[in-house]
Amino acid sequence: MVPQCDCATVHNLRVHARFHAPDAQVPGDLVLLPTEEAEHLTRVLRLKAGDSLRVFNGRGGEFDATVEQAGKSGVRVRLRSARQPAKEASVAITLAQAVLKGDKMDDVVRDAVMLGVAAIQPVVTERTEITRALLARGRRGDRWERIAISSAKQCGRATVPPILEPLEFPDLADALATLTLPQPALMFVEPDTGADASMLSEMDQSPQREATVIIGPEGGWASGEIERAASVCRMVTLGGRTLRADAMPVVALSALFTIWREF
Amino acid sequence: MVPQCDCATVHNLRVHARFHAPDAQVPGDLVLLPTEEAEHLTRVLRLKAGDSLRVFNGRGGEFDATVEQAGKSGVRVRLRSARQPAKEASVAITLAQAVLKGDKMDDVVRDAVMLGVAAIQPVVTERTEITRALLARGRRGDRWERIAISSAKQCGRATVPPILEPLEFPDLADALATLTLPQPALMFVEPDTGADASMLSEMDQSPQREATVIIGPEGGWASGEIERAASVCRMVTLGGRTLRADAMPVVALSALFTIWREF
Repeated sequence: MVPQCDCATVHNLRVHARFHAPDAQVPGDLVLLPTEEAEHLTRVLRLKAGDSLRVFNGRGGEFDATVEQAGKSGVRVRLRSARQPAKEASVAITLAQAVLKGDKMDDVVRDAVMLGVAAIQPVVTERTEITRALLARGRRGDRWERIAISSAKQCGRATVPPILEPLEFPDLADALATLTLPQPALMFVEPDTGADASMLSEMDQSPQREATVIIGPEGGWASGEIERAASVCRMVTLGGRTLRADAMPVVALSALFTIWREF
Repeated sequence: MVPQCDCATVHNLRVHARFHAPDAQVPGDLVLLPTEEAEHLTRVLRLKAGDSLRVFNGRGGEFDATVEQAGKSGVRVRLRSARQPAKEASVAITLAQAVLKGDKMDDVVRDAVMLGVAAIQPVVTERTEITRALLARGRRGDRWERIAISSAKQCGRATVPPILEPLEFPDLADALATLTLPQPALMFVEPDTGADASMLSEMDQSPQREATVIIGPEGGWASGEIERAASVCRMVTLGGRTLRADAMPVVALSALFTIWREF
């Protein structure tokens, strides 16, 4: 189940209602909303033909629009005019996150989108307790995509970051090894792993265009993974704290957005 | 209900089991564990007389100890030797947090303790949906204290930050107005409130000894509160992002610990 609608404020201010309309392109267009969005519009917010709304296409386009038709055959909205979308972060961070247990990965997707990542790369590591086959069978990617859309709706982003196909850790490391850009890849490790890690505050803090942030599972990294990663990315730690695995992405992203002056 | 024990790793490594023993003072002492801790020790981890454990007293003391007696009359442990406690943050942050709805405040307490705050000050604001009287009747302070202890157990802190008595916002503002120390008080505001707020990156980033970080409720600050606060603290924003109220404390604390070089 996708997280419940949490837009109590929006309910009181219908003019701010905001919907995902992936087909929205240019003002004047008549656009069909996806089924889930149409149901949110008719059943939860009870908007009707003639009501105003905002739509975003998930690729940076944001529009003022009007409900033209809201019935059993779906909801169609007319794009009135383009709006300035919320500013995206100037550093494009890909969060390479080891898949966490249960619904904790859902929260990570929701929060990473809210904070402004450019993409999410789920990773299956040695201590991840689920396989890529099970992720595919459970359609977890579809679920994470719905959560990403829902988070973008709430946080005001007009861009929905893609959820990439899950990778095994060695394949992620190989991919990082082929990067020729000056893109930093940072792997967060616990202080007691013996990895040659530096504190974030010791790191080069000059602005970046792109970065990959790699975060491990509940059981931490296996020593072979730390060895493999050492040749393709910088190892960083947040000092002596022991943080919960599911809190780590928000803390790490907040710290990096601070260092790269997004806040 | 206090969050469930999440120490699966600890269960496999009993030597690392760690308990709150507020009476622990000096090596040699025989100390009675509080009831909840005794139950965790006997029922969940199934430790017995002779087993090793660690205890912390919540005031910075951490000890290696041995179970001396584990029975119906309670659990007594003998302190063997003092250990070096986990390092506390060098900036003592008080999180003044508007009480959030439902169990979201519980998560804020848990995460703020994990990140390393020195104290938590619950605040009742104009848009907080619960009164101080109801908080007292529901013994919410006791509950938050148990959550703080539980979080300290998990994250390795030997210090349990106090949960202060809830204050009304005007009383918090009055208290801040009397501070003569060079202690910064920072109030986080949404970018569209019209408050004269600066980005964190524009703020004086020199190290601090103490700070108060003030974070609002789901519905945001009332305009009178922003006016009142403007004279006693600095207003800061994290830029154009709209963050969920319950995510805000972790993001803000992570950003500030980064700026003050704790990470």
